[in-house]
Amino acid sequence: MREAHYFYVPNAAETDELPLDETIHAIRVLRLKPKDQIYLMDGVGSFYLAEVKMASSKHCLYKVKEVLKQNPSWKGQIHLAIAPTKDMGRMEWMVEKATEIGFNKISFLNSKFSERHVIKADRIERIVISAMKQSRKPWKPLISPIVDFKDFIKNEKAKNKFICHCYDEIPRKDFFANLDSNNDDIVVMIGPEGDFSIDEVKAALSLGYESVTLGKSRLRTETAGLNAVMMANLALRL
Amino acid sequence: MREAHYFYVPNAAETDELPLDETIHAIRVLRLKPKDQIYLMDGVGSFYLAEVKMASSKHCLYKVKEVLKQNPSWKGQIHLAIAPTKDMGRMEWMVEKATEIGFNKISFLNSKFSERHVIKADRIERIVISAMKQSRKPWKPLISPIVDFKDFIKNEKAKNKFICHCYDEIPRKDFFANLDSNNDDIVVMIGPEGDFSIDEVKAALSLGYESVTLGKSRLRTETAGLNAVMMANLALRL
Repeated sequence: MREAHYFYVPNAAETDELPLDETIHAIRVLRLKPKDQIYLMDGVGSFYLAEVKMASSKHCLYKVKEVLKQNPSWKGQIHLAIAPTKDMGRMEWMVEKATEIGFNKISFLNSKFSERHVIKADRIERIVISAMKQSRKPWKPLISPIVDFKDFIKNEKAKNKFICHCYDEIPRKDFFANLDSNNDDIVVMIGPEGDFSIDEVKAALSLGYESVTLGKSRLRTETAGLNAVMMANLALRL
Repeated sequence: MREAHYFYVPNAAETDELPLDETIHAIRVLRLKPKDQIYLMDGVGSFYLAEVKMASSKHCLYKVKEVLKQNPSWKGQIHLAIAPTKDMGRMEWMVEKATEIGFNKISFLNSKFSERHVIKADRIERIVISAMKQSRKPWKPLISPIVDFKDFIKNEKAKNKFICHCYDEIPRKDFFANLDSNNDDIVVMIGPEGDFSIDEVKAALSLGYESVTLGKSRLRTETAGLNAVMMANLALRL
């Protein structure tokens, strides 16, 4: 076997069978057979070396040979909260890339100037799982369904909260320059194509969010989201 | 006029007419009329405030009112040299995003394990121009046609040359940690899906390239390319 095969199996240690969609891939595409070695990822910090025990067209049983606990590659939590773009394809690639780079959670926001109010969470979930397998991430990023901006800022409990915006009349610090490895629990908010409303920004500031900018570039929403994740990962990486 | 309209006009100061594709956009989409204000970008550091003088279906004449010289937002030159991915769509979005973030030049490499040996440079050019307008970049990134790996490493004259690769047997420094604002003239090479060959890496090192990694994440080619541009921009930004 030239390339190790990874499968996403939540609770991998407690079961002995691949989920149906992974079974189809294992049997019909990879044509795995008994005694083949596979790797399982539970999405919560462990990989498992396992051996195929039985392979039929709809079932693939395995036996775990070794639990491989993984170490985190960045400190704390990186949480991106973003108003989805009208074109969902742009969000999808951003989620794929952010998963490759490394982050913990994405929340989608319903804000005043949002041009999209629904997302297909199951599609995003599939993209995250695929990118997690491709980039061998031990932790699966969580996907939070769309939530109203006001509810989000009220309920979010991260230690370090940032809101990116483009209003020159509200002083902004540089996001990256204000990150250091002590900021190990971060949420960063990115607005829609038309930005947050100024009232939304003020509401967030009144609840302890810091007003920040990602730099001088004029970025599309999805580029800003990915850039924020890259900066946070770079600041917190171990 | 609620949003300023930007047009890419090489040699904007020496002509008085929009190029045909920009004319079509100006007249048929934006329906500009005489006395409307427009902005021109020459792609080499200046914007121009201009006024529409004549607008017919195929011609749009303007008069420059003011030359607006722009300041660079990063020091020196950021040059990405990358082996294109099999799926050209992945290169296209990378080029769009790298333009938004800010870089100076992209070269496409033909390396041993390359899965693509041709690119549509005119398509990449259109994407770059569109992203340059959208993100208001005064300098247009240059696009270099596909060149053989060996020729590239022999001819490239940047002061600071880096090659990213995944060979554990060759010591690698961290790319971002080794950038500082004195490294103001950078070329960074990113390999294809199957990486550079080890002989290619050794050939580059023998010509003064530094062996680097972007970090612990296992990134797709296009994600690595964008990540390298983001890191370089972050290190060199003014």
